Amino acid sequence: MASSLLSTPSRTLAPAPAPAGLRGRATAQAHLPRAGLGRGVAPRRSCALRVRASVAIEKETPESEPPPTFLREDGQGAGSGSVRARFEAMIRRVQGEVCAALEEADGGGARFVEDVWSRPGGGGGISRVLQDGRVFEKAGVNVSVVYGVMPPDAYRAAKGEAGKNGAAAADGQKPGPVPFFAAGISSVLHPKNPFAPTLHFNYRYFETDAPKDAPGAPRQWWFGGGTDLTPSYIIEEDVKHFHSVQKQACDKFDPSFHPRFKKWCDDYFYIKHRNERRGLGGIFFDDLNDYDQEMLLNFATECADSVLPAYIPIIERRNDTPFNEEHKAWQQLRRGRYVEFNLVYDRGTTFGLKTGGRIESILVSLPLTARWEYDHKPEEGTEEWKLLDACINPKDWI
Amino acid sequence: MASSLLSTPSRTLAPAPAPAGLRGRATAQAHLPRAGLGRGVAPRRSCALRVRASVAIEKETPESEPPPTFLREDGQGAGSGSVRARFEAMIRRVQGEVCAALEEADGGGARFVEDVWSRPGGGGGISRVLQDGRVFEKAGVNVSVVYGVMPPDAYRAAKGEAGKNGAAAADGQKPGPVPFFAAGISSVLHPKNPFAPTLHFNYRYFETDAPKDAPGAPRQWWFGGGTDLTPSYIIEEDVKHFHSVQKQACDKFDPSFHPRFKKWCDDYFYIKHRNERRGLGGIFFDDLNDYDQEMLLNFATECADSVLPAYIPIIERRNDTPFNEEHKAWQQLRRGRYVEFNLVYDRGTTFGLKTGGRIESILVSLPLTARWEYDHKPEEGTEEWKLLDACINPKDWI
Repeated sequence: MASSLLSTPSRTLAPAPAPAGLRGRATAQAHLPRAGLGRGVAPRRSCALRVRASVAIEKETPESEPPPTFLREDGQGAGSGSVRARFEAMIRRVQGEVCAALEEADGGGARFVEDVWSRPGGGGGISRVLQDGRVFEKAGVNVSVVYGVMPPDAYRAAKGEAGKNGAAAADGQKPGPVPFFAAGISSVLHPKNPFAPTLHFNYRYFETDAPKDAPGAPRQWWFGGGTDLTPSYIIEEDVKHFHSVQKQACDKFDPSFHPRFKKWCDDYFYIKHRNERRGLGGIFFDDLNDYDQEMLLNFATECADSVLPAYIPIIERRNDTPFNEEHKAWQQLRRGRYVEFNLVYDRGTTFGLKTGGRIESILVSLPLTARWEYDHKPEEGTEEWKLLDACINPKDWI
Repeated sequence: MASSLLSTPSRTLAPAPAPAGLRGRATAQAHLPRAGLGRGVAPRRSCALRVRASVAIEKETPESEPPPTFLREDGQGAGSGSVRARFEAMIRRVQGEVCAALEEADGGGARFVEDVWSRPGGGGGISRVLQDGRVFEKAGVNVSVVYGVMPPDAYRAAKGEAGKNGAAAADGQKPGPVPFFAAGISSVLHPKNPFAPTLHFNYRYFETDAPKDAPGAPRQWWFGGGTDLTPSYIIEEDVKHFHSVQKQACDKFDPSFHPRFKKWCDDYFYIKHRNERRGLGGIFFDDLNDYDQEMLLNFATECADSVLPAYIPIIERRNDTPFNEEHKAWQQLRRGRYVEFNLVYDRGTTFGLKTGGRIESILVSLPLTARWEYDHKPEEGTEEWKLLDACINPKDWI
């Protein structure tokens, strides 16, 4: 999910690609990644009508100041009590708190640089990046609000078949594109010290409007996100602490959440061509709508608020651990794996790249530096081998 | 096309993905990348029936010695005068010559390490890698021979529609998977000096068998490949020399080849999300079958034989050019772009990763080290800016 919140449109309305006619319409378009393509994506339990579609996103323009809200004034759900508005307020608060805590943890006077952008049709974002600090090689914390459209099932429409899910109009007319709203916070933190782990988190909220020319088409909402840890070396105390905080956040809401979202995380961050996970997991969920909406808003908020207590104590302990060139080279090889996952598999990244999302915000998830050695294999029993083993065989850490 | 020759199955037999039933059958499977997905892929002039399909490739096993041939004894085209056999002999000769010349150019005693592998059902390959030499950071030169199967148009088969292209049997029975043969040489050479350019070349030959249970289905052959240059700094003498050698090779065969394949190269090595080419181009072609087969075999041979005269003089001139940390950092940023292209867009790489190709051979195309800085923009008029400008606006160098 890296640094784009746009992973969720993989759940849209139709099992076939849009026809050439629809594809030509929009400013920036692409096909969504093929969800569940043997990539270890976890089973969806929610009612999602999952497939792919073309999605159009306008190019962004820079702004000098963050506006009070990125929500459209005239849009659905713009009221201050709406889930959209409360979610936006939450992610912007969390962005501020996380950045302040990271600057303090960095401790060397490095500051986050802020880029604010908006799109002509509504929405926008705030990207904050701290680069080459004392502790952090690269830390990005982004929020964004996106209004877009997804073409519905063009194949069925062309066939004149009434969609089971109501996506096709009863009179056989082509349904129009379905407007969607998405808001999210996304962050990747790469420390310099090879004993300090990389952290990623991303929480997002998604809604589709009811398409005006397709009566009966569903209006849907869902939440997605997760927090996961990617160390180069296993320090059990740190990994246990991290997973414990995730479990505590989950357990406040439903005892099934932690086991389910822990496994989902292990399944999602899977580098199929390596048969390895990117790191040591955490929690991950997507398309979550089979609970009360208020409850899930609170749950996403709890998860986002758990990032700092999960991560800052680890960073404070490992910042100044002595390391040598071999440790650094191994960290760089693992950074290479991070790049492989993000560019090849991560749905948010690949979707963002192909649909004209803000490239620098999306790719801030990539490490400052990475390394690829031909056929590198750590010697069995070494600390490097132990990390790799845990990436191949996910463990229960608590 | 990086280090896998397997880009060509993107041209297969059917416009719809294989159904779940077919997908479950094979050891390693995936969908091909969606060809022409707004990625600047050049228009196809040949008769190709282009789409996507699932492809199964068995896992490889290591071998201690290269066999005299990777061709199946009992297969079609195994005779020594066949195009398959002559193409395999050519790429193995070129591999030997290129590696010998690179070791000599490296001049520091570094040697290529060889890995030989085969697949139980036939085919195999030889990967040769020189890492951390005096001149080369990483140089990979691979040959491989692959026997595989592509499921035909499962959607049409399920519909009982007779395929226009003969892929569906006349009696409405499901056509079986179509066997294919592919052989190729693929190489990426990353020098250490920021003034010495990266080179990539890849030449491949492809055949489909006539499927036994689908009378009338086409048996096809085609050639693909290209050679392209990726410098971090423009040294006009070098770029002109490189393109001149490509033009000379093309002009021996058809005056239309160089302009057509030069443009195809600029279109193919396009990093859409950056609106930049990976480098300064060269030649590229795919699905080439609209000329005499002997002529195209000779053309591919000429191109492969032009690699050393195009590249070695440049390397010899730039090995020892003095450079500073800024030059190196810029090279590392351009290496980052190389990674982005290869992992996100390159059809050979993405296809290989998703179908169970030999991972270390495929990813040897990645540089030893790469770098991503947030929102890096070279100052207008600088040497870095000039390179970027030429990647955004491809030029005629000769």
